[in-house]
Amino acid sequence: MVLYFTNKKKWLVRVSADEKLHTHLGYIELGSIIGKEYGASIKTSLGEKLWILKPTIIDLILKAERKTQIVYPKDLGMIAAMTGVSSGSIVVEAGTGSGVLTTFLANLIKPNGHVFSYEIRPEFIEIARRNIDRAGLADFVTIKHADAKKGFDEKNVDVVIIDVGDPWTLVRVSWMALKGGGVFASISPTMNQVEKLVAELVNAGFVNIESLELLLRNLEARTGMTRPSMRMIGHTAYLTFARKVLSDRV
Amino acid sequence: MVLYFTNKKKWLVRVSADEKLHTHLGYIELGSIIGKEYGASIKTSLGEKLWILKPTIIDLILKAERKTQIVYPKDLGMIAAMTGVSSGSIVVEAGTGSGVLTTFLANLIKPNGHVFSYEIRPEFIEIARRNIDRAGLADFVTIKHADAKKGFDEKNVDVVIIDVGDPWTLVRVSWMALKGGGVFASISPTMNQVEKLVAELVNAGFVNIESLELLLRNLEARTGMTRPSMRMIGHTAYLTFARKVLSDRV
Amino acid sequence: MVLYFTNKKKWLVRVSADEKLHTHLGYIELGSIIGKEYGASIKTSLGEKLWILKPTIIDLILKAERKTQIVYPKDLGMIAAMTGVSSGSIVVEAGTGSGVLTTFLANLIKPNGHVFSYEIRPEFIEIARRNIDRAGLADFVTIKHADAKKGFDEKNVDVVIIDVGDPWTLVRVSWMALKGGGVFASISPTMNQVEKLVAELVNAGFVNIESLELLLRNLEARTGMTRPSMRMIGHTAYLTFARKVLSDRV
Amino acid sequence: MVLYFTNKKKWLVRVSADEKLHTHLGYIELGSIIGKEYGASIKTSLGEKLWILKPTIIDLILKAERKTQIVYPKDLGMIAAMTGVSSGSIVVEAGTGSGVLTTFLANLIKPNGHVFSYEIRPEFIEIARRNIDRAGLADFVTIKHADAKKGFDEKNVDVVIIDVGDPWTLVRVSWMALKGGGVFASISPTMNQVEKLVAELVNAGFVNIESLELLLRNLEARTGMTRPSMRMIGHTAYLTFARKVLSDRV
Repeated sequence: MVLYFTNKKKWLVRVSADEKLHTHLGYIELGSIIGKEYGASIKTSLGEKLWILKPTIIDLILKAERKTQIVYPKDLGMIAAMTGVSSGSIVVEAGTGSGVLTTFLANLIKPNGHVFSYEIRPEFIEIARRNIDRAGLADFVTIKHADAKKGFDEKNVDVVIIDVGDPWTLVRVSWMALKGGGVFASISPTMNQVEKLVAELVNAGFVNIESLELLLRNLEARTGMTRPSMRMIGHTAYLTFARKVLSDRV
Repeated sequence: MVLYFTNKKKWLVRVSADEKLHTHLGYIELGSIIGKEYGASIKTSLGEKLWILKPTIIDLILKAERKTQIVYPKDLGMIAAMTGVSSGSIVVEAGTGSGVLTTFLANLIKPNGHVFSYEIRPEFIEIARRNIDRAGLADFVTIKHADAKKGFDEKNVDVVIIDVGDPWTLVRVSWMALKGGGVFASISPTMNQVEKLVAELVNAGFVNIESLELLLRNLEARTGMTRPSMRMIGHTAYLTFARKVLSDRV
Repeated sequence: MVLYFTNKKKWLVRVSADEKLHTHLGYIELGSIIGKEYGASIKTSLGEKLWILKPTIIDLILKAERKTQIVYPKDLGMIAAMTGVSSGSIVVEAGTGSGVLTTFLANLIKPNGHVFSYEIRPEFIEIARRNIDRAGLADFVTIKHADAKKGFDEKNVDVVIIDVGDPWTLVRVSWMALKGGGVFASISPTMNQVEKLVAELVNAGFVNIESLELLLRNLEARTGMTRPSMRMIGHTAYLTFARKVLSDRV
Repeated sequence: MVLYFTNKKKWLVRVSADEKLHTHLGYIELGSIIGKEYGASIKTSLGEKLWILKPTIIDLILKAERKTQIVYPKDLGMIAAMTGVSSGSIVVEAGTGSGVLTTFLANLIKPNGHVFSYEIRPEFIEIARRNIDRAGLADFVTIKHADAKKGFDEKNVDVVIIDVGDPWTLVRVSWMALKGGGVFASISPTMNQVEKLVAELVNAGFVNIESLELLLRNLEARTGMTRPSMRMIGHTAYLTFARKVLSDRV
């Protein structure tokens, strides 16, 4: 459950009879939320009104426990749009990390698809499991403690998504896992990673290769004094997309 | 079916035994594609190789018949991420237009959700129906030839998405249709539209109001000479998001 | 004199025999700088090396005393390029503020041009004078404590630059001051200001009207891991430029 | 002289008694301009009104004869702001090219400064000379047909500006030419160039190294329907700036 005060002050909580949420606006008896509907409000001990909202998938993601760099909503959305991942899709992911992208994908492929996610670092797998559980999406995800460089077990999958530091090392195993025409996607912060990745995608016979970045800027809309926000994030990651074709080159 | 030559030269075709596709690269007998798998290639009469790909939802959208301004993949993806529309969602849309956003949403909510889309201009309804049919998503969409300003028939919906020139006129009917905590989204090209919309959202008691734009820039990744693309689209639309709460103000 | 430690740690100091500069890196006896040349280094009491640099005009501007919003180097530079202000130019400015833009302009028009700058708020005039003095440019600037709305004393000037909250109120007096073909420039943070300004420029018969904004993003160039900076400023101001022509409309 | 019709239709002409300018709007007898003042208008043979404007330095630059990639006003302006080039500055440039940047710099350093510009390709030197002459700035520029890699003749200069494809090869000769604390600037389209350049600047003991790019977007300000321009240039070049210090490393 989200308790909303302002765009920058939200809390993701679980309702439990005996706990309190302490904030700089006073505390909330979490038990007192029981029976309230989404959209209703509740007052803190200091009389501040908080709104009770059902968390969206982005609320869950932005409030997830994590040890890794976040994947931003703009990048998640672009991956959704460009890969076409939707209900029923079979997706392979390399680099589970904190499971944020995994959670987003699982929400899109449910109830008939599945996400197979590979991670070699055991310390991340527990975090990812907790985040995916918390979002109620555990049935749609299989996390594998395995080295993706040795190959993916799955074949004929719709989409492969790579979120590791050396994505070029996974191009050939991605080709093996994808069905003909399947979509490859990768997320990388540096231009050097993209340069190496694209060279390898070309070598491996992928087509429709496209790399891009998205810049998000808020608009502060106030009557008679509307302007873009003075703060903005300069860079998150480059996204690269490609399609598998059945060339003889691999 | 997509026939791919380069990122800028793709054709969306339907396989039929007797037709030819004529291109500047020579023609293709479309019947000869029958029996080929996705990812395979075919040669034109001039010997150029085209790749046979299954259209992604974005291929369908970018090649859709239309009389209206396109909604771009970056904006579609951001709407998907920020609204959390996914399998099972009940979505109301105002401004069907050519049905491009409708198609994208229908692909996300299938097989258990539904999109109810309102359009007052009859000439668009036929185009939209054709585009949605072509994507195989007609079962998940109901197009209504009705004036959304008079109110939406649906209640308790998850998400309302507004794509009309005067979105502020639909804020109160959106509030009536949404469930508590439901997500409102709107697409507008001008700052003035956003200014009026946000003022009305505030008046109507929506919270978590956020307006933004996305700038997409391609990266031309070539070994030793990587740089951003010299061409880019400067502006498509502003996106505005908000959540319904159960205030006394409406 | 600038003492440089890193891009984010610089101090603008005046050399004086008896003072110390105290920093988190230790202190510097400012007298010990006497006799050193630009480009030389000096050590703090804690042994950290600082580089002695001659302040550029931007160093002076970024370290100026101010009570007003800064004008950023990117916007200053664009004003220089688009107006063509250079040695010998006669420039009228409305809205001296802290004198930052005035300082920048004075540095460009010296030694044969002049900047006439209008300010109605006496509390700013003293700050502006100190900043212009500190940059050694007082001979090239006349600050006038007067309301620009009543008209500029100067006629036949090359360039008029407006940096006030209601720039549209100064369009006609700018027209009166400019020579035929002279360049009008204005700086405004909101789109509503630009909208009103441009409407008034059109009414007053200006031509070649252009409004724009510049987004600056740093590139973090490090071998094998080059990427854009994750932080960036989202918006500073819109710049509007126009040329005076001798229509009958004013 | 500029004949202005719209922001996209301008002509840079020289008045001469016997010539005509032919345009799609009709022709102009150029002799008929004689005696008209700047800001006046003239009609074409088809009755269209053109405005007579004095060319700004940017008009001269954008209409210059050239065989090389243009340097854009936004980048020229940023170079002016960050280097502080102004009347009296001594500037060394490597890569005269078509002389566009040279012209811009000469306009800033006049009447007491000088630009020394190096070019190894003789075919460019003639073009550059014509462009600089046309702007009336020949007295302030010395073009040298010489290989900058062998060193600059000038010492103790204020600013060195590099506009060649392999700027890292000129870092050490730039260090030799600059005075202590002098400013180095370079223009490069690719990230790989910036990566190599910055590594070499670090090696050579430069400080205050900063790389950046500027994105320019026009605002289409029209009452009640203001929005950013849908077209924009995605990338021109990265700019890198640094300061020479007197380290032992070179």
